Amino acid sequence: MSSSRVVSNGGSAPVDTVTTGPIQGSVKHYEQVEADGTALRIPVRRINLTNGEHFDVYDTSGPYTDDTAVIDLEGGLPKLRDSWEKPQVEGPPTQLAWARAGIVTKEMHYIAAREGVSPELVREEVAAGRAVIPANHKHPESEPMIIGKKFAVKINANIGNSAVSSSIAEEVEKMVWATRWGADTIMDLSTGKNIHETREWILRNSPVPVGTVPMYQALEKVNGDPTKLTWEIYRDTVIEQAEQGVDYMTVHAGVLLRYIPLTAKRVTGIVSRGGSIMAAWCLAHHQESFLYTNFRELCEILAKYDITFSLGDGLRPGSIADANDEAQFAELRTLGELTKIAKSYGVQVMIEGPGHVPMHKIVENVRLEEELCEEAPFYTLGPLATDIAPAYDHITSAIGAAIIAQAGTAMLCYVTPKEHLGLPNRDDVKVGVITYKIAAHSADLAKQHPRAQERDNALSKARFEFRWVDQFNLSLDPDTAREYHDETLPAEPAKTAHFCSMCGPKFCSMRISADVREYAEKQGLTDVQAIEAGMAEKSAEFADAGGKVYLPVVS
Amino acid sequence: MSSSRVVSNGGSAPVDTVTTGPIQGSVKHYEQVEADGTALRIPVRRINLTNGEHFDVYDTSGPYTDDTAVIDLEGGLPKLRDSWEKPQVEGPPTQLAWARAGIVTKEMHYIAAREGVSPELVREEVAAGRAVIPANHKHPESEPMIIGKKFAVKINANIGNSAVSSSIAEEVEKMVWATRWGADTIMDLSTGKNIHETREWILRNSPVPVGTVPMYQALEKVNGDPTKLTWEIYRDTVIEQAEQGVDYMTVHAGVLLRYIPLTAKRVTGIVSRGGSIMAAWCLAHHQESFLYTNFRELCEILAKYDITFSLGDGLRPGSIADANDEAQFAELRTLGELTKIAKSYGVQVMIEGPGHVPMHKIVENVRLEEELCEEAPFYTLGPLATDIAPAYDHITSAIGAAIIAQAGTAMLCYVTPKEHLGLPNRDDVKVGVITYKIAAHSADLAKQHPRAQERDNALSKARFEFRWVDQFNLSLDPDTAREYHDETLPAEPAKTAHFCSMCGPKFCSMRISADVREYAEKQGLTDVQAIEAGMAEKSAEFADAGGKVYLPVVS
Repeated sequence: MSSSRVVSNGGSAPVDTVTTGPIQGSVKHYEQVEADGTALRIPVRRINLTNGEHFDVYDTSGPYTDDTAVIDLEGGLPKLRDSWEKPQVEGPPTQLAWARAGIVTKEMHYIAAREGVSPELVREEVAAGRAVIPANHKHPESEPMIIGKKFAVKINANIGNSAVSSSIAEEVEKMVWATRWGADTIMDLSTGKNIHETREWILRNSPVPVGTVPMYQALEKVNGDPTKLTWEIYRDTVIEQAEQGVDYMTVHAGVLLRYIPLTAKRVTGIVSRGGSIMAAWCLAHHQESFLYTNFRELCEILAKYDITFSLGDGLRPGSIADANDEAQFAELRTLGELTKIAKSYGVQVMIEGPGHVPMHKIVENVRLEEELCEEAPFYTLGPLATDIAPAYDHITSAIGAAIIAQAGTAMLCYVTPKEHLGLPNRDDVKVGVITYKIAAHSADLAKQHPRAQERDNALSKARFEFRWVDQFNLSLDPDTAREYHDETLPAEPAKTAHFCSMCGPKFCSMRISADVREYAEKQGLTDVQAIEAGMAEKSAEFADAGGKVYLPVVS
Repeated sequence: MSSSRVVSNGGSAPVDTVTTGPIQGSVKHYEQVEADGTALRIPVRRINLTNGEHFDVYDTSGPYTDDTAVIDLEGGLPKLRDSWEKPQVEGPPTQLAWARAGIVTKEMHYIAAREGVSPELVREEVAAGRAVIPANHKHPESEPMIIGKKFAVKINANIGNSAVSSSIAEEVEKMVWATRWGADTIMDLSTGKNIHETREWILRNSPVPVGTVPMYQALEKVNGDPTKLTWEIYRDTVIEQAEQGVDYMTVHAGVLLRYIPLTAKRVTGIVSRGGSIMAAWCLAHHQESFLYTNFRELCEILAKYDITFSLGDGLRPGSIADANDEAQFAELRTLGELTKIAKSYGVQVMIEGPGHVPMHKIVENVRLEEELCEEAPFYTLGPLATDIAPAYDHITSAIGAAIIAQAGTAMLCYVTPKEHLGLPNRDDVKVGVITYKIAAHSADLAKQHPRAQERDNALSKARFEFRWVDQFNLSLDPDTAREYHDETLPAEPAKTAHFCSMCGPKFCSMRISADVREYAEKQGLTDVQAIEAGMAEKSAEFADAGGKVYLPVVS
């Protein structure tokens, strides 16, 4: 990894440095795929192994990890999708409408190649509303990806400056950094100053879909007073962001006036910012939420750009005590109603979920969401399986995230170690992303996703064969794996040594095990019957072989 | 926290420093419990809250966190249990025999108070073999604790020096450090030099039960060559350790000769050290394992001291690919057979489990263990839910650990970030312990363990009320929670501020939510009916109140 300085042209944007270059042990590689006469270049990260083989993994990092790419933050990434035609059909220009019309778009071909599935499966799932392709026509820089339970579980990383801290430069680097380590989408949750400009820099340079919560910017426009919000201010903010290319928008349109009192007896009330903004507005005006009453107009706007709805759970639980309560599920029923409306406008929809939920109440969330929202992709924040570990909420939430993803959740919003405590820095973003790759991949394994176990097998095989460097490079974070190994055994020969620091050179279970295998295979002793029948007579033979096999054990 | 230097008397043991003093925000407190005329002092960690209340939590840390205790490592901890009588019954002097005879021992009373359950429940579970109390008569320094699925899920921390690294001093401090943060038992897995002496220092100073794998020391006695092992060498090692006070011993007696070829086709063969040692011995001699053939004699030895068997899973899977295979479950069936034999000798038994298991195959492990081993407490190492994240295996395994504990596993062996890569240092031990407290507590919540949610509620209430200091102190790791908070908002007033760095001072969902609650409660608007009936007429009223309520929102 190198850090490439890109000098700003002296404008107001202080973006000047992002991380470029491949991840340790791998190179950017492109697979060529033919789609209706167009050649698509599908990016993969190719991990070169020491045994001459290679292993390709899904790659979210865009051109930044391509040694041959020229990164120009001022100019933005190449507009990959600009030349791809938009099919003309009855209905809005959205992937949903095209899928329903039986059209397999370039985006669908691209995604099929990335996921290792048929283009027709991609089309079917989008047409059914069980998967979404967040891809605003005005964000042609993004590499198409899909969110749906038949595909690999995705993760989102939140970035964004706040009134308290951090600059545009930091946020662009966080985006590059998060996608480097595997973020499938990012959400720009900036508040405070420079929201529009920060977002512009992020969008022009983001290889992944970008989501926002337009309400945050609308609130800035009324100087932070939720009671001063109007539909017009909100709508204009949505259009402003749509024009910039935002791919999906969180809209808390399910927080209805009558649900607000349901939160009064909660331990932690309303913890969603969007939810509490709308609750404040509804109570102050004693009117139904303007997001709900103007939802159809919102659909018309989003349809035009093919922006995906992420229907927000403004009443999600903020503590174990509040999980799965009446307020939460009342809102979910309304989200189901809104899902149907959005889809009738040809708009793609996903549904946001909690939050804080004890393990035994997690699966019920998926079951209800699928029942009420026509299996629209579920996109959850964790959930945290306990409240008692601030500073470790990436872990408390990874437990919940893995379980909820196994049950069918399509995308997981990451949580960093700083959750509930402060703003994540660059290291926190990486830990959050890696932790959520673990949760997502664990779920892929549990769902027996076609390709998932190949990587586990490759890494475990490398481990068993003492190919230390391959073990590092096949891992989610080669830098840290190598660093931890070197802390105990820094010498270079230890990278090929047939032992590790846990047992030391004198005795190693992995090595003995390899010897056992070698012996057993040589003798054809690979099942119980064979050994029972054949081993007695081979005892003396093994004693000889054993002498040799175990010789190095005696130091 | 302070670091108290205890000067060595110049002997060979280089132990001179351990961490003492209470955890930030709490003090050691003792509850007095009367048990058959004896006054028992039950330790708790008392967290003093800023609102004048306090919250007591289970405390594993022993006298080290007691400001009034004098720590003398040379002298060891006070011999708490030495004066407690050993009931005379038909059968060996074990908690199992006593429980079966209907006797509630002092240990059971002590445990009942710690767990908040009736002494009779403790006795019943021990009598049924569904719970164990690892308490060697020769380790009277330990504070009684229980491992069983009806009780809080426990965690074990492995320590121990190896041929490659670390000293006795480091290991004693790791024991103190691990129990400080919540380790319920520790295992001393030392190899290399000074095994006996290291263990002596640990036992004399450990307030929690200590487990070992006697085979490791036996192997040292034959200079690391497993083929040179004999039953006599092993037995004498067991007796040596029993005399020192080891509370439970891992014995890999289920690795039978005929199972070994079942591992030949595995991706990662045999990964248990004990398992591979026995496999090597069986193959070299072409004889059945001496642990298996001499198991009854072993039972007689363990019964005398009331040492608990931890029947090791020498054929546990070392990778996702090998999970739940024939080798693993064949051994488990043998462990079931050995469980019955051990219990017939009055010896307490728990069963060790994997390892590496994808989420969808985890519950089957618990189901089979309970079926085959008469519900003896299950004690698992993780399991890791994926192989692809070395350097984060505390997290990959916490996912599996939480799930397997929810399913009924009674104790979880921690995994540190260094797993598969190197030896854990002090920081790694802490991260491993806290991560496993998260997994264990998440399972307690999911099992609806009587007291579990109280702590979540207390912390969430503190969070909602902006009692930052209480939020830190109620967490599993107050030091790190405070440190992360201060990184973004270091000023002392921020500890009482009604906002945090995530949203900044202008807008805060928690604060709005508190305002909503206050308003709704004032109006009696606590359910849907009430608001629908009553709110229309109260609108103007709220607008006024709202004006005041939200005034501070506008900066």
